[in-house]
Amino acid sequence: MKLYNYFRSSASFRVRIALQLKGLAYDYVPVHLAKGEQKAEAFGAVTAEHLVPVLELADGRRLTQSMAIIEYLDEAHPQPALLPADALGRARVRALAQLIACEVHPLNNLRVLKYLVHELKVSEAAKNDWYKHWVRLGLLACEAHLAEQPGRFSHGDAPTLADCCLVPQIFNAQRFDCDLSGLPRTLAVFDACMKLSAFQKAQPSACPDAE
Amino acid sequence: MKLYNYFRSSASFRVRIALQLKGLAYDYVPVHLAKGEQKAEAFGAVTAEHLVPVLELADGRRLTQSMAIIEYLDEAHPQPALLPADALGRARVRALAQLIACEVHPLNNLRVLKYLVHELKVSEAAKNDWYKHWVRLGLLACEAHLAEQPGRFSHGDAPTLADCCLVPQIFNAQRFDCDLSGLPRTLAVFDACMKLSAFQKAQPSACPDAE
Repeated sequence: MKLYNYFRSSASFRVRIALQLKGLAYDYVPVHLAKGEQKAEAFGAVTAEHLVPVLELADGRRLTQSMAIIEYLDEAHPQPALLPADALGRARVRALAQLIACEVHPLNNLRVLKYLVHELKVSEAAKNDWYKHWVRLGLLACEAHLAEQPGRFSHGDAPTLADCCLVPQIFNAQRFDCDLSGLPRTLAVFDACMKLSAFQKAQPSACPDAE
Repeated sequence: MKLYNYFRSSASFRVRIALQLKGLAYDYVPVHLAKGEQKAEAFGAVTAEHLVPVLELADGRRLTQSMAIIEYLDEAHPQPALLPADALGRARVRALAQLIACEVHPLNNLRVLKYLVHELKVSEAAKNDWYKHWVRLGLLACEAHLAEQPGRFSHGDAPTLADCCLVPQIFNAQRFDCDLSGLPRTLAVFDACMKLSAFQKAQPSACPDAE
């Protein structure tokens, strides 16, 4: 398998975690988002979305969208499971993942920040406030969900799709100096994840294209 | 079952379509987003996310996040299936759904538009350009994916999770007068969906709280 990705892309980071948790080897194909390599014609031939991550399977088929890729990996390589065995548990894990992937991350990714600055002429300070606003809202909701039940990870005592999404978001929040007060459960889950070598090996600083 | 939702919320609309396709009866609980009812303390007791839709099951358990809710409905009530039987098909349908739900809709929902206007003091024209920009980008990528294979709907000849997400996005695009040129496959899928009574019954104008 081949993963088109970028060390700092948190959607890419989610998939790297899943691949590491499953113990699946892959070729790392860097696409430099800050330099705009994803917009190039060559990458358009890889995916019409011009977004990373893209997972290319051995037969050349390409999968897009990080959560869809992780669910595919979980179906094709069931152990260790990244989704609970029961339907309500799966609904909870997917909702936690989507709380990050649909409510927080889309507002704060690079192309959106660039639009704010270049098209809307938003100041650096106002851009940072925007970033922090959506992170804070999302993480407070996340904390409330996580407080609903015990367990070392987002759902129970083993990492799931929810943790694959949460951890990269915390990395982003730290990088942009977001307020992480009042989030004890969320940060405890983050710490539990970062004790695992799978999360460590997937992190941005461990990537071949890290700067 | 009880669905907390709003006639114009496209995430709510997705779930209404799924409920109609499955032939599942539910109580409609309107939450007026434009009036800010979702921010009220009473609704905070329903969901810490302060977002619609929320599906309340017969036993009182509450599910959040539209795609997670639809996957739950598909597992609990398998017929008619809203996800393909094969893993690669599921990956494709989920990716199409997430292309809308993670790349387009989060940038254009009401709270984001309000932030642009009230916090960033963006003009009405610039706000509309923002809206149209993300819709256009997303729908062009969607068109490229849909052109990959024939079929009346987004994936094959029966509606799936992907169609549950696509149709509300087209409603939004039409409402905000977005450019829909060069999207023949996307609009053909939309038309095929809107020929079905499930999509008609779920549409905003058919809701009890429609204005």
